[in-house]
Amino acid sequence: MYQVDLNSDLGESFGAYTIGMDSEILKYVSSANVACGWHAGDPMVMEKTVALAAEAGTAVGAHPGYPDLMGFGRRNMVVTPAEAKAYIKYQIGALLAFTESRGIKMQHVKPHGAFYNMAAVDEKLADAICEGIYEVDPSLILLGLANSRMISSAEKIGLPAASEVFADRAYNDDGTLVSRKLPGAVIHDKELAIARTVRMVTEGVVETASGKLIPIKADSICVHGDNPSALEFVKNIKAALEAKGVRICSLSAR
Amino acid sequence: MYQVDLNSDLGESFGAYTIGMDSEILKYVSSANVACGWHAGDPMVMEKTVALAAEAGTAVGAHPGYPDLMGFGRRNMVVTPAEAKAYIKYQIGALLAFTESRGIKMQHVKPHGAFYNMAAVDEKLADAICEGIYEVDPSLILLGLANSRMISSAEKIGLPAASEVFADRAYNDDGTLVSRKLPGAVIHDKELAIARTVRMVTEGVVETASGKLIPIKADSICVHGDNPSALEFVKNIKAALEAKGVRICSLSAR
Amino acid sequence: MYQVDLNSDLGESFGAYTIGMDSEILKYVSSANVACGWHAGDPMVMEKTVALAAEAGTAVGAHPGYPDLMGFGRRNMVVTPAEAKAYIKYQIGALLAFTESRGIKMQHVKPHGAFYNMAAVDEKLADAICEGIYEVDPSLILLGLANSRMISSAEKIGLPAASEVFADRAYNDDGTLVSRKLPGAVIHDKELAIARTVRMVTEGVVETASGKLIPIKADSICVHGDNPSALEFVKNIKAALEAKGVRICSLSAR
Amino acid sequence: MYQVDLNSDLGESFGAYTIGMDSEILKYVSSANVACGWHAGDPMVMEKTVALAAEAGTAVGAHPGYPDLMGFGRRNMVVTPAEAKAYIKYQIGALLAFTESRGIKMQHVKPHGAFYNMAAVDEKLADAICEGIYEVDPSLILLGLANSRMISSAEKIGLPAASEVFADRAYNDDGTLVSRKLPGAVIHDKELAIARTVRMVTEGVVETASGKLIPIKADSICVHGDNPSALEFVKNIKAALEAKGVRICSLSAR
Repeated sequence: MYQVDLNSDLGESFGAYTIGMDSEILKYVSSANVACGWHAGDPMVMEKTVALAAEAGTAVGAHPGYPDLMGFGRRNMVVTPAEAKAYIKYQIGALLAFTESRGIKMQHVKPHGAFYNMAAVDEKLADAICEGIYEVDPSLILLGLANSRMISSAEKIGLPAASEVFADRAYNDDGTLVSRKLPGAVIHDKELAIARTVRMVTEGVVETASGKLIPIKADSICVHGDNPSALEFVKNIKAALEAKGVRICSLSAR
Repeated sequence: MYQVDLNSDLGESFGAYTIGMDSEILKYVSSANVACGWHAGDPMVMEKTVALAAEAGTAVGAHPGYPDLMGFGRRNMVVTPAEAKAYIKYQIGALLAFTESRGIKMQHVKPHGAFYNMAAVDEKLADAICEGIYEVDPSLILLGLANSRMISSAEKIGLPAASEVFADRAYNDDGTLVSRKLPGAVIHDKELAIARTVRMVTEGVVETASGKLIPIKADSICVHGDNPSALEFVKNIKAALEAKGVRICSLSAR
Repeated sequence: MYQVDLNSDLGESFGAYTIGMDSEILKYVSSANVACGWHAGDPMVMEKTVALAAEAGTAVGAHPGYPDLMGFGRRNMVVTPAEAKAYIKYQIGALLAFTESRGIKMQHVKPHGAFYNMAAVDEKLADAICEGIYEVDPSLILLGLANSRMISSAEKIGLPAASEVFADRAYNDDGTLVSRKLPGAVIHDKELAIARTVRMVTEGVVETASGKLIPIKADSICVHGDNPSALEFVKNIKAALEAKGVRICSLSAR
Repeated sequence: MYQVDLNSDLGESFGAYTIGMDSEILKYVSSANVACGWHAGDPMVMEKTVALAAEAGTAVGAHPGYPDLMGFGRRNMVVTPAEAKAYIKYQIGALLAFTESRGIKMQHVKPHGAFYNMAAVDEKLADAICEGIYEVDPSLILLGLANSRMISSAEKIGLPAASEVFADRAYNDDGTLVSRKLPGAVIHDKELAIARTVRMVTEGVVETASGKLIPIKADSICVHGDNPSALEFVKNIKAALEAKGVRICSLSAR
């Protein structure tokens, strides 16, 4: 039987500021990436988000980002590997306090935004992140971009890794994502996006921008819940997958 | 045999900013309170400080503070009990990542500055802090002001507690500290400060500002290492204690 | 002819986080209090908010707060008068860059949240704030709580002051606000709130919680625009005032 | 007569953290670059630093940096031109409050660290910075790296610009600095550094790493005052310049 994880970023509110429809999206996803207070989130939000996810039976992971609340962690910052490692550890630890308090096991770590994107192509940064995760807890699963440096860095040290794919992004022939700066990088046709996703999960292939079929590992699909139309898309993708006999389950439930 | 813990605040540097003579003070103290990135400290400093303490064989504790780097956590802030609890958990967790990475067990939690002082007299705040510690790990030891709300809150829920005394502070008849706003609050005569400390540890009493002898529990003595004269005082107090047959040992080594 | 200012807090968004219906509320108010990046707001938001206000013909003032983004500046913090003064100056200056760039004159300064509330009852804090404003530009108008320390501190040094009243708050016999901790502090009956406001503006009196009529100076009325029902209330209060012949105009247009 | 400005970064302390020997270096330099609270500095430090500079008769400029206190503004961050412009304006304004309060005119703006380095080679970033300065006050002088994008961007819009040279850095044939990643980038021979500086000021040329003589504009020399040996170097460079008849004076005093 086919199975795949649906993951979403949660707990991105901060103080008086609210972002995301967390209670809604939790009905559909199997893994929650919880912000750790650097690019988003605060301790009150983390506590509440872990509780919500625990109640929903959704697996919890850390979503560490750059120290850039003003930029929501989306802006590239040049940090040293030693800094990256320490930043990852700090944020995993901070979230661990809340998962431990609830008596649940943290499942995974998915770096956020610019941290994720830079590590996907920078081996030293990817190594530092994976080592940081491994040193805190070698049973944590790295959730990283399929075919990226993140995955190879994890494999190098024996850290469990899960490959993430995107329903609405075009792929290059080498399995990397087409840059957002290029035309066609984002697939706006939702039917097509869903069909491509089903194929990635059930056939293990994706059609690249050049028309080639290449193999791709789809352990988890990234979905969003920050507006009603995004939620609608999650419902549809989930229904389409289940109609093809795909079981939606967290990374640790496989 | 008498025994007492000597504790000091460490890891208070931040980025390019350096405070404290950490490597020096580690030669004398048995417990290190490590700043957790809110009032002081950053992940790089935390990693390094835990490593230094581990090498020195000094027990490590978390030193969580208010979110006030500009005020070094020394300014009173009114936070709700729920906020206090979440803030404590977040910071303990962040440090846990570094102690776990080094394979050492975190020993204690000592709130910092205004957080410590406000909790000493505010039962709800003290309860929130103790509950936060307990929920993360009920074997952690609260290090709080002797005879304060902190100690009674910990006892209420079965959280291990250690009573901290100050060598250079005057005490009221009820066992609380004489306010720094009053004359005589700080004992500047170093010989006298050392003699009082020895008496607290070996006889379990302290002479109050009014001249009374009252019982006091001295599990740990707070010392500072931010300048050469403070270091000199630590050496002297340690020598004086050992001359009286007192063993200096961490809270968990008793 | 009667005249009064309607003021509202604007520019409280931060980075990816949005709060407030700024474009909507700007249609009704005569003065905008713009957050300065400490408790809310960021430079991009400040630039945009000043531009919006300038286009709407709304007078612009600085809305400095405590350095507490996580608490939205609503939590009491104990800062020294020297700190308060420097914090006020910093934030006024930061906003000045944007008003100067647009070629408009900053009209007023209204401290935010806990800064406002603490200064209303603390003479030293109020003095520090007024001195800070005065030193940057003695023609700036302090907008503070009617009958509070803020107003008397401004008058002491010759800083222009405007008295702010609240439509939905009960008053004590001495002209101060009934504490929110007491029952009846907030007037939920919107008709009554509007009637009271009209009376404050046109008769210069307010009925206190005890039933007494006391004089009150109502230079400006604080209104909110963070949700549709708040906006509706602003429309109604403005209509009610204008129906009584009251002219809505900014503090500097009188 | 030859003349040149000596500039140094000041006011980089933060809260309880102290960096720099500001009172000492002020005896030698003609222009002070004052940190504005983002990468370093806080309002109390800014107020004090402006007062110190005013007493010493040293010209004051803003030293805006990236929002990265943890990295002291030395780490590259990718911000949009609109963000760069707003960040520059915010920080200039914040410092303006303190110079206005002292009744002194702000002389210049020198971006800090990574902001300075990135803008030196990125035309869009340099344009944004210069426009930001110009919009706040077109009489402010941009202090930027000689032969860099910063200088050409300023000239493009008519913003006064001053070219900064470094005593201890090697130059390429095109007038740019040899990258610190390359051997020989830093000139450790202090006698040589001083001789090169004197030549830049009095002859308007510098010998490049390849041995060529190229023209260079030396309006201001960057010096440091964060340790006794740096201070000694400043004394020596000043003495060497004055011995050659060079007058040390601020940018606005020429």
